[in-house]
Amino acid sequence: MRNQLLTMQIYRANILFTPTPEKFEILERGYVVVGDDGNVIGTYQNLPPEYQDVPITNYGNQLLMPAMNDLHIHAPQYRNLGIAMDMELIPWLNTYTFPEEAKYKDLAYAERMYRRFVRDLWKLGTMRAAIFATIHPEASCLLADLMHEAGLGGMIGLVAMDRNSPDMLRNTPEEAVKGTLRVMEHTASMPLLSAIVTPRFVPSCTPEMMRALGKMAADNKLPVQSHLSENLSEIAWVKELEPESSCYGDAYYRYGMFGQTPTLMAHCCYPTAEEFELMKKQRVFAVHCPTSNCNIGSGIAPIRRFMTAGIPVALGSDISGGSGFSIFRVIHYTLQMSKLKWVHGNYKEMFLSLSEAFWLATKSGGSFFGKVGSFEPGYAFDALVVNDEDLNFDNYTIQHRLERYIYLGDDRQIQHRFCQGKEIPEPKV
Amino acid sequence: MRNQLLTMQIYRANILFTPTPEKFEILERGYVVVGDDGNVIGTYQNLPPEYQDVPITNYGNQLLMPAMNDLHIHAPQYRNLGIAMDMELIPWLNTYTFPEEAKYKDLAYAERMYRRFVRDLWKLGTMRAAIFATIHPEASCLLADLMHEAGLGGMIGLVAMDRNSPDMLRNTPEEAVKGTLRVMEHTASMPLLSAIVTPRFVPSCTPEMMRALGKMAADNKLPVQSHLSENLSEIAWVKELEPESSCYGDAYYRYGMFGQTPTLMAHCCYPTAEEFELMKKQRVFAVHCPTSNCNIGSGIAPIRRFMTAGIPVALGSDISGGSGFSIFRVIHYTLQMSKLKWVHGNYKEMFLSLSEAFWLATKSGGSFFGKVGSFEPGYAFDALVVNDEDLNFDNYTIQHRLERYIYLGDDRQIQHRFCQGKEIPEPKV
Repeated sequence: MRNQLLTMQIYRANILFTPTPEKFEILERGYVVVGDDGNVIGTYQNLPPEYQDVPITNYGNQLLMPAMNDLHIHAPQYRNLGIAMDMELIPWLNTYTFPEEAKYKDLAYAERMYRRFVRDLWKLGTMRAAIFATIHPEASCLLADLMHEAGLGGMIGLVAMDRNSPDMLRNTPEEAVKGTLRVMEHTASMPLLSAIVTPRFVPSCTPEMMRALGKMAADNKLPVQSHLSENLSEIAWVKELEPESSCYGDAYYRYGMFGQTPTLMAHCCYPTAEEFELMKKQRVFAVHCPTSNCNIGSGIAPIRRFMTAGIPVALGSDISGGSGFSIFRVIHYTLQMSKLKWVHGNYKEMFLSLSEAFWLATKSGGSFFGKVGSFEPGYAFDALVVNDEDLNFDNYTIQHRLERYIYLGDDRQIQHRFCQGKEIPEPKV
Repeated sequence: MRNQLLTMQIYRANILFTPTPEKFEILERGYVVVGDDGNVIGTYQNLPPEYQDVPITNYGNQLLMPAMNDLHIHAPQYRNLGIAMDMELIPWLNTYTFPEEAKYKDLAYAERMYRRFVRDLWKLGTMRAAIFATIHPEASCLLADLMHEAGLGGMIGLVAMDRNSPDMLRNTPEEAVKGTLRVMEHTASMPLLSAIVTPRFVPSCTPEMMRALGKMAADNKLPVQSHLSENLSEIAWVKELEPESSCYGDAYYRYGMFGQTPTLMAHCCYPTAEEFELMKKQRVFAVHCPTSNCNIGSGIAPIRRFMTAGIPVALGSDISGGSGFSIFRVIHYTLQMSKLKWVHGNYKEMFLSLSEAFWLATKSGGSFFGKVGSFEPGYAFDALVVNDEDLNFDNYTIQHRLERYIYLGDDRQIQHRFCQGKEIPEPKV
């Protein structure tokens, strides 16, 4: 018991989190008690007497909140961040993205870029991510190593693609399965990391590939991530390629990769009525990537409709369609896009509130990784300490301080980052 | 007088500017020669021999570009930056904005906030701005003093409003005219600053007010700034208030404030066919404020259509509807919103290119202040030196470096700022 107390940690600060989307739980100069397993024991406005001998780290007037979760990000597009935004999805993939990803055959190149990728995740406060790597097993395992070394969590997807792709960037179904299983075995000893089955998207995967991946997901109980209904031309193309599927989502469903195991589908800008029902029935996550959807002119996903229907929603940066790592920035865009949807849809779908968008980035997105994204008892202590004194010059409320940090702040205000209870130092590049 | 303060200067760096919207003029490690009047004499890839005795400031591999111009910004909304985004225009004004602006009766409060406002303009690289102040003449003159002290340029508008506003925030037509003329006289000795006639918007101004302001603009050849067709409920309200006007724009035109003198109209999200033609005929500037239009759910202005028709377009941050000072960020949103307009309008209006959006922020917006926003001969040397070495880790082209700076950078990379040839130090807060 004494030993347990010594390994416990208590942090004091202005605590904000969202147990429910409707509102922030705020503890002004409150306490969070973290157990030796890195999970939250409880949050308290006044510290209960049984913890009085536990040392307290006092962050004073700073903000303490759950860390960000990024549920859709392409690590090998790191170099292309902020360039090449002059095309829509399909030509963008062929012209800019595929040639860049092909470079990851070279492990030295991969290491140089992936180290920066991991550092920037850290920098912007993202502690867990669902990541697309490339077709290359060595580089994908290297990415897992670097995430593990850094102390960050998430899932690594070896990308499967065997059609409509350049020759240098294709794998066979056998290679994709073998590579994914290799990532699975490689991450088996890494408590915060695991593998995820990753068909790039329907246009890049033959029925043979889809069948092999679906079987692997079922056999190994592996989750799945891919892209869905991002763009109108893409949807039309899928209809041509998979005429027997009743909707784009059905082209995953029929192969066992649409909620048969936990599934992330990025974008979901244009769900048909049938696809919407299938997502709902299968509890498929819609991963909202609004910065990317604006940058490559995809459109605006109906997030309010998803939330009302009980379809799980998470947020993603979608680098390098998205142009930055900050999930705080994605929260801002989520609010803005929900307002454009509201005004252009005759005010039918109410726009999101700040607490709803924050909840998407924390507890809702985090739920894909387990009990992550909240400070309720039993949740992993994934947290950020934000020193917003430069923004807080006129006695703003705690909630307004968070709001101003989201709208105006950046990595400079983030003072400390925790993942699963452990403070994470800056990863070396 | 400035002849004594400045001598001829030569700056060397990677120079980018947009003499036309179609493409960047790029001089890799080129030279810009600036005369003792603070205006550009010329840009050169190789320095002509006649300048060989002029000292050269060599910025090495950094980027040198025209500074940003902000053609729509509300200085007294500074405190509300990044908060209170949960309402559309009219309730937002009544609930959050008007009570804040009323505080500027207190000159000490005004000074505290306006000093920060000027510092932040500087920080984000905006060297000239068309500013809405408040109804208060003292605070408006103080704002001019602080801009002048800092060395920044632009126009200061004492706001006129005499209906549909709280009592504490109304002036009479006489007061509005007297106050504006006072700002005009106050800025007469400030070479980079001047006054601008500023009816808040039609719903806040009685016909008597509009008539008095229009007459003052004509008598004193003063430019005009206001708001136009920002939001659908606002447009409906204007129709009710001004039933004799054929469109919202006509409610300014009939009082001599729609291009009779140079005119800025912010937002212009929903021009009718008639309003569009009137803007074109009168060469009224559409000031595009996309961050604000997203934050308060106004909509997306048809910028491509304006540009094709030859209607002048500039960019504005519209603080605090907009949530940051960065016009680079506004460039990013301008590109993104033009893509949403493109996809949601069946690909009819082609989205903007990077050079077009940059041109809007520099030469197009700057033209409202004279020869500002380019490095062509005779243009004011308003410039930023950007050290992007943290973003340039893989031999990007000069244009890609600018693009990455716009998408990924912030104030940290801006190393030097010039306005009218003079380097501007950080203004004190």
